[in-house]
Amino acid sequence: MPFMPPTDSMFLLAESREHPMHVGGLQLFERPEGAGPEFVRELLETFRTSENVNPLFRKRPADPVAAVGSTWWATDDTIDAEYHVRHSALPEPRRVRELLAATSLWHGSLLDRHRPLWECHVVDGLQDGRFAVYTKVHHAMVDGVSAVRLMRRSLSTDPSATDCLPPWLHERRRPSAEGEESGGFAPLRLARSVARTAASTVGDVAGLVPASVRIAAEAIGSNDLTLPRAPKTMLNVPVGGARRFAAQSWEIERIKRVAKSSATTLNDVVLAMVSGALRDYLIENNALPRQSMTAMVPVSLSLRSGSADAGGNQVGAIIVNLATDKDDGSTRLEEIAASARQAKRILGDLSPTQILAFSALQMLPLALSPIPGFVNATHPPFNVIVSNVPGPSEEMYFNGARLDGLYPVSIALDGQAINITLTSRAGYLDFGVIGCRRSVPHLQRILLHLETALAELEQTWG
Amino acid sequence: MPFMPPTDSMFLLAESREHPMHVGGLQLFERPEGAGPEFVRELLETFRTSENVNPLFRKRPADPVAAVGSTWWATDDTIDAEYHVRHSALPEPRRVRELLAATSLWHGSLLDRHRPLWECHVVDGLQDGRFAVYTKVHHAMVDGVSAVRLMRRSLSTDPSATDCLPPWLHERRRPSAEGEESGGFAPLRLARSVARTAASTVGDVAGLVPASVRIAAEAIGSNDLTLPRAPKTMLNVPVGGARRFAAQSWEIERIKRVAKSSATTLNDVVLAMVSGALRDYLIENNALPRQSMTAMVPVSLSLRSGSADAGGNQVGAIIVNLATDKDDGSTRLEEIAASARQAKRILGDLSPTQILAFSALQMLPLALSPIPGFVNATHPPFNVIVSNVPGPSEEMYFNGARLDGLYPVSIALDGQAINITLTSRAGYLDFGVIGCRRSVPHLQRILLHLETALAELEQTWG
Repeated sequence: MPFMPPTDSMFLLAESREHPMHVGGLQLFERPEGAGPEFVRELLETFRTSENVNPLFRKRPADPVAAVGSTWWATDDTIDAEYHVRHSALPEPRRVRELLAATSLWHGSLLDRHRPLWECHVVDGLQDGRFAVYTKVHHAMVDGVSAVRLMRRSLSTDPSATDCLPPWLHERRRPSAEGEESGGFAPLRLARSVARTAASTVGDVAGLVPASVRIAAEAIGSNDLTLPRAPKTMLNVPVGGARRFAAQSWEIERIKRVAKSSATTLNDVVLAMVSGALRDYLIENNALPRQSMTAMVPVSLSLRSGSADAGGNQVGAIIVNLATDKDDGSTRLEEIAASARQAKRILGDLSPTQILAFSALQMLPLALSPIPGFVNATHPPFNVIVSNVPGPSEEMYFNGARLDGLYPVSIALDGQAINITLTSRAGYLDFGVIGCRRSVPHLQRILLHLETALAELEQTWG
Repeated sequence: MPFMPPTDSMFLLAESREHPMHVGGLQLFERPEGAGPEFVRELLETFRTSENVNPLFRKRPADPVAAVGSTWWATDDTIDAEYHVRHSALPEPRRVRELLAATSLWHGSLLDRHRPLWECHVVDGLQDGRFAVYTKVHHAMVDGVSAVRLMRRSLSTDPSATDCLPPWLHERRRPSAEGEESGGFAPLRLARSVARTAASTVGDVAGLVPASVRIAAEAIGSNDLTLPRAPKTMLNVPVGGARRFAAQSWEIERIKRVAKSSATTLNDVVLAMVSGALRDYLIENNALPRQSMTAMVPVSLSLRSGSADAGGNQVGAIIVNLATDKDDGSTRLEEIAASARQAKRILGDLSPTQILAFSALQMLPLALSPIPGFVNATHPPFNVIVSNVPGPSEEMYFNGARLDGLYPVSIALDGQAINITLTSRAGYLDFGVIGCRRSVPHLQRILLHLETALAELEQTWG
């Protein structure tokens, strides 16, 4: 029975009814031309093949009811395929709206710890003929970036390929690298790095905080580090267990055009969209703080060397000023770009180990948030997490069905009631906004405001 | 903020991912003749009216994340109607089978403690034109019998009535009596009675066991009471959180005919069906114990006075020998009838208080089952709980839609991996079998075996 490292079990320990610790993805597909009504039914049957399931997807906590955390992984020989792969349908009128409502509910329920920690819903019959696949996987098993990678690997660039298999039926190419060990940048990988550092130092999750503060301070060679601090807002409150999910695609060309003529980056423009959207949303809720809000943005360390692909195993994070106190969109974009440049310049002066330690330090308050009362009593380290996870740049197909949407469904945490994660796809950026259903009413209005913010930027920079 | 008595909070305390503590009901309806495609959509809108929600359905634990149990109820002014009332659909081919698969999954997820503890799924479009309503309510809010009562009150015997409202929009007729205070017989009411007795004696749930043993012993006037003991079977194991639900209706006439010619009762024949079904099921699984299995059967105390209606507030339980060691169906029926008669005779010699205490004593091992290791280390007090909850005896309608099925979806507990609850309805007995998805494979085969057992009895007594 393989030992479960604290870096895995911390996600099981930290989980409660209020914090499901799974990551999800919502994929939209167009049926292949000429596909009969049985296409999705057959796909479902392929999905439910219970032979040759990848061991990663047969792994479960050996002692699911342990009060002090699980310590071992067990691997089941077989899986209950009908449980893991669900055939779902949408109520009339079967629009994307009904799909998002269903996804909100699916994402808010806990995974069963008595079996491998994943579920998949094959959703038949949007009114426009498309179908959808929603998958959720526990963060103790795999992180968001690795999940996207597993999913990419299951698709093909060839529309006529008919041998596509879902991630759990895919052979593992490198048996030594479990999904969670592959590279990428995701906010919780960072918390994981903090825990890993601490665990290897004091061998104890309880020792997490002082050890990593010390290590970080030593690494950066300074003793007067301060923790980041952002204004308290309605987004920085303890969360409940229910979720609301909103998702929409934007043409990547629109965003690139603004970035080019304003001499900023694509990520700067995305952050300016988020800034404008959150500003409008908080104004509507009479809750805009006077001080500017900030975003935590995970970055790949390969950014330093200018490489476009996130190939490395190391991950860092920067905190960017969103300039939500400015009412002009262009001004916000300029301040965001300046803030991001400065944060990256700091990273550029550090060694990879220093970056990791520096980033871990910024994440510390997040690691502390499960402590009762912590979220209410302190300022948040930042107001929102905005992740950009690289997706496929070419058109992708699953047995002839064209991928037409790839929306990440991430994690809301105590103190972080909204998470915005986006994935790139041929021609599009797919935004997924997950929020605590109780703290963040009318979450879908953020989509509207994202479009308004982009349109405002286009008036100046389009 | 009203105080939450230990008799309510114990259901919140005892709950875990492995033991969701909610009760459910699955109703099937026929559309009224000439109803348009908008019928269910309009019904959904009625259901989602958020004005005048009964306070019982606005009640939630004031401190949902308290580690040592909730102590206060809070009452919300409004509810998130789209969260509580869900519009759901079935995948093709939209048979009852797909409905039961969906119900299995809905029943296995925990209710959100940050809001009133209930959910309802309005399920549109079975292939045959019927629609369904699945409702789940936390046992801390209401017990199974009261839930059936609330549901009955929402229906009408008049097919042309158009003013039917769902239970949560129904006025409370007696404001002093919350749902959980109304009468009936359900297994967990009994556990509740145990706790209530103990709580009023020592004011402490921890003191539950010794206090009630003492009270029960004193009430019955004997010190040599022994706890009931049944053989260990595959049904008496710790359970996981996922469920499987099976349901089917039987014509009440068939069962009555067997009861009449065999000079037994309807409940005896039901138990003989259960006995035959469990026997066949365990034989298939190579797991039939040599010793006969037993069933715990909650009974209304009004049985003593021969009254047919369960009007009282008091509830008792008997343990009946299922004679699963006998291979002839008629022999099993005779032994079951004899065992039930004897158990009821004992109850008949006792005062109501004594019955309550006696019944509570038999339930004790159930109250102990949340203690880690308890279920594995001890013999079960009985092998299965079989409840018969009285339903409406006339045809009932909801705004013209005829009720065509009323299946209780009960609770699986550690040590009780199956629960069989049935409801009577005009002309039918509707059986609902809930089981732990992990411990009880192919649960739906029990339906087949129930029919086989009844058919066998009919050959002799039909």
